[in-house]
Amino acid sequence: MYKLVLLRHGESVWNQENRFTGWTDVGLTEKGLAEARAAGQLLKREGYDFDVAYTSVLRRAIKTLWTALEEMDRMWLPVHHAWRLNERHYGALQGLNKAQTAAEFGEAQVKIWRRAYDVPPPPLADGDPRIEADDPRYADLAPGSFPRTECLKDTVARFLPYWHGTIAPAVRSGQRVIIAAHGNSLRALVKYLDDISDADIVELNIPTGQPLVYELDADLMPIRHYYLADDEAIRASMQAVANQGKATG
Amino acid sequence: MYKLVLLRHGESVWNQENRFTGWTDVGLTEKGLAEARAAGQLLKREGYDFDVAYTSVLRRAIKTLWTALEEMDRMWLPVHHAWRLNERHYGALQGLNKAQTAAEFGEAQVKIWRRAYDVPPPPLADGDPRIEADDPRYADLAPGSFPRTECLKDTVARFLPYWHGTIAPAVRSGQRVIIAAHGNSLRALVKYLDDISDADIVELNIPTGQPLVYELDADLMPIRHYYLADDEAIRASMQAVANQGKATG
Repeated sequence: MYKLVLLRHGESVWNQENRFTGWTDVGLTEKGLAEARAAGQLLKREGYDFDVAYTSVLRRAIKTLWTALEEMDRMWLPVHHAWRLNERHYGALQGLNKAQTAAEFGEAQVKIWRRAYDVPPPPLADGDPRIEADDPRYADLAPGSFPRTECLKDTVARFLPYWHGTIAPAVRSGQRVIIAAHGNSLRALVKYLDDISDADIVELNIPTGQPLVYELDADLMPIRHYYLADDEAIRASMQAVANQGKATG
Repeated sequence: MYKLVLLRHGESVWNQENRFTGWTDVGLTEKGLAEARAAGQLLKREGYDFDVAYTSVLRRAIKTLWTALEEMDRMWLPVHHAWRLNERHYGALQGLNKAQTAAEFGEAQVKIWRRAYDVPPPPLADGDPRIEADDPRYADLAPGSFPRTECLKDTVARFLPYWHGTIAPAVRSGQRVIIAAHGNSLRALVKYLDDISDADIVELNIPTGQPLVYELDADLMPIRHYYLADDEAIRASMQAVANQGKATG
């Protein structure tokens, strides 16, 4: 049996400001750093250890990972960065306040943009400077393939090649893996692992900074999964994520 | 022409306490963190950028690198960790105060232990718990080969295989490389690159937190080298390192 640990980054500056973030590279808040430290301490206390770590190319996930590894005295572990683990690209919503967007377009529309499996938000317009074609961290993206928006289905499609080609072989080889990533890139993985329907994935939220353990069989099929923290902490954290799309949030 | 940047970690807790550190894994002080931030800001201001970073398995070097990369907005760069970049192992002197050791054994003896090319300090005794044979970061050390002490010649001998096998090929392939390491592992590299004699290397000190640029020709022979900071800052920093072995230091 294999164990895989998933960790969503702690609160970012734009989580705090209730703005759609996507591929915008914002840092953690003090609360986010504290969440990352607590995650590392919890993993260490529960006896978890790792051989390799995977994360995105966005600083809120990297800093969460670094901070947790520092608490675990595992700063020297190999860390692999991939844009395929990035948050879902939020298109033209990036930078907008979630509550204001809900007030303008309605909570139902925002919930569709936030959670519907195959409805992407409006795309970035031609010539938008956020189409970062010359950012070296995206150098391996083919010309013209920089995303302008993504629905979760798109995120699944670009995440899974990295899972199948890189992470899954590492798990299968016996390496103990931690993935520090984002709400929607982790939802993409969880949807795949647990074979969650397009309809049911809408209601699944992953709390920030809470180590989520997947036990996998020899074929990497999930046996069970659980958070390391107690149920009440998880419930409160999940509710906070769900409330972000409310006009009064 | 290639450029290679060397960075010695910022002040560590044991630098501050004037203790021999070696392979002891102590963290940075606030001053050390500030040095690392300043190094990253200086590199960014001077237009430096990197494709890959190499560092040791010791947290003071890793944290210096991470902090500099964070300032440069390059947290997503690949980072390779190797014990071959560790500080020189200081044997039984690890943990002892440098000034007290100088008072007890004489400044001349301490200078020999600190700087002589081929005289190692007294080794760790059999059964010393610091012979960390089961620490996973040293798992690739063959059984029985964990160092008990090192002179600089020993450090050169274990550093150079990593230079020739890993770092030099990366430089030669056109990758822009930063090495964040330690006073003596960087002295080992500098001795090799500049073909410094066993006698002359005794007087060479490398200041903490100061990016040191080597320009190398197609055969990786040095054309010239320089610090990015101004001369006075470098002189003050080097003198601070040289004074550590004085009984009154």
